[in-house]
Amino acid sequence: MSPSSSKKAVVLLSGGLDSATALAVARRDGFECHALSFDYGQRHSAELAAAARVASTLGAVAHKVVRLDLRTIGGSALTDATIAVPVDGRAEDVHAHGDIPVTYVPARNTVFLALALGWAEVLGALDLFIGVNAVDYSGYPDCRPEFIAAFAGLAQLATKAGVEGGRFQVHAPLMALHKHEIIRLGATLGVDYALTVSCYQADGDGRACGVCDSCRFRKDGFAAAGVSDPTRYRAPT
Amino acid sequence: MSPSSSKKAVVLLSGGLDSATALAVARRDGFECHALSFDYGQRHSAELAAAARVASTLGAVAHKVVRLDLRTIGGSALTDATIAVPVDGRAEDVHAHGDIPVTYVPARNTVFLALALGWAEVLGALDLFIGVNAVDYSGYPDCRPEFIAAFAGLAQLATKAGVEGGRFQVHAPLMALHKHEIIRLGATLGVDYALTVSCYQADGDGRACGVCDSCRFRKDGFAAAGVSDPTRYRAPT
Repeated sequence: MSPSSSKKAVVLLSGGLDSATALAVARRDGFECHALSFDYGQRHSAELAAAARVASTLGAVAHKVVRLDLRTIGGSALTDATIAVPVDGRAEDVHAHGDIPVTYVPARNTVFLALALGWAEVLGALDLFIGVNAVDYSGYPDCRPEFIAAFAGLAQLATKAGVEGGRFQVHAPLMALHKHEIIRLGATLGVDYALTVSCYQADGDGRACGVCDSCRFRKDGFAAAGVSDPTRYRAPT
Repeated sequence: MSPSSSKKAVVLLSGGLDSATALAVARRDGFECHALSFDYGQRHSAELAAAARVASTLGAVAHKVVRLDLRTIGGSALTDATIAVPVDGRAEDVHAHGDIPVTYVPARNTVFLALALGWAEVLGALDLFIGVNAVDYSGYPDCRPEFIAAFAGLAQLATKAGVEGGRFQVHAPLMALHKHEIIRLGATLGVDYALTVSCYQADGDGRACGVCDSCRFRKDGFAAAGVSDPTRYRAPT
């Protein structure tokens, strides 16, 4: 848990609440943090501005944004303008029936971890951090512990560092936490959640809609955590 | 080997000799082929024009090009202008010493397969084709059978289709073939290698330098296969 301060990690940073908390955990654990974000055609591009603010305030030594146009392959409400973003609990109904929400982006975490792995190779890093959790978003197949473990095994085989004996670790410190536990953890680590954007349809200034699934999970999380919600909403909720 | 003609596959297509042959194999095996290429900041962008020609002549039902700027993370002679492309056998020396050539792009096949997997999910395809081989380029960790098998296992866990019981297969039909065997196979399947570009530093018209490692492997392959080399070179070789 306390490697030397020179140990490098690549931290996936979306600009949302979860990945900001994962970055704070990586810093707590002594890693020199290299934050990685993606401009992948997501609707809520305000997230990228948020990611830059979060990386800066949480002491990341570098922050890169890789352009990657996932709209080319489509298939998600987050990247495909022809699929509606779920609001007012529709996706909760989807969850209740064991299905996968339409906001799932095909193979997204596989792609993002693969790019994090590429940067890790360039840096000589063996540690990756990702803010997934299997509790509140259990419908996403690539947010499960077995997926994370399989990716670590793949990294070992896929890379020069792995072939040469380095041991890759994929850290998912939020995996078993509920949203309110994530918020409490981040609050103790000094995360300023006012900087983060979770909303699926945030405006250009990063103000949240207050009604999409992501907003609802977030609001409920602050309430359950007993932490004041600093989110900037663009309409009365 | 002979699924119904409605079975879809995503085929990674670089525009080079190997992936063109892999596409021909996928077509031979009865797949409806969806070809996927990447504009990833590679120096030899003539490859992308070649990929489009190859996809068309080999009957792919679709061809997509995903933009992905790997220059952001650097680390390879193929995407980093500060690293020289090896010529005149330098990389063969590297191979002889068991090292990994500087033309290795960090985590490239992991990234490309991840994106192929994303498109496969959108299409409802369970089959991916990739033209890697472990014989002539054994220095690349992500061209080995154990890597391909691990990726198939990851795909199973990463995806909605996998969670719902579909069985992903990652086909690497060239894995155990020498370059001259790949060329003979492609020739029997009707691949027009004049359309393909392998050169690390091809000009804008796709004419090959004749001296880089990739050109040398290719030339030697045609000679060993006893197949006339249709490559367009830009200088006497």
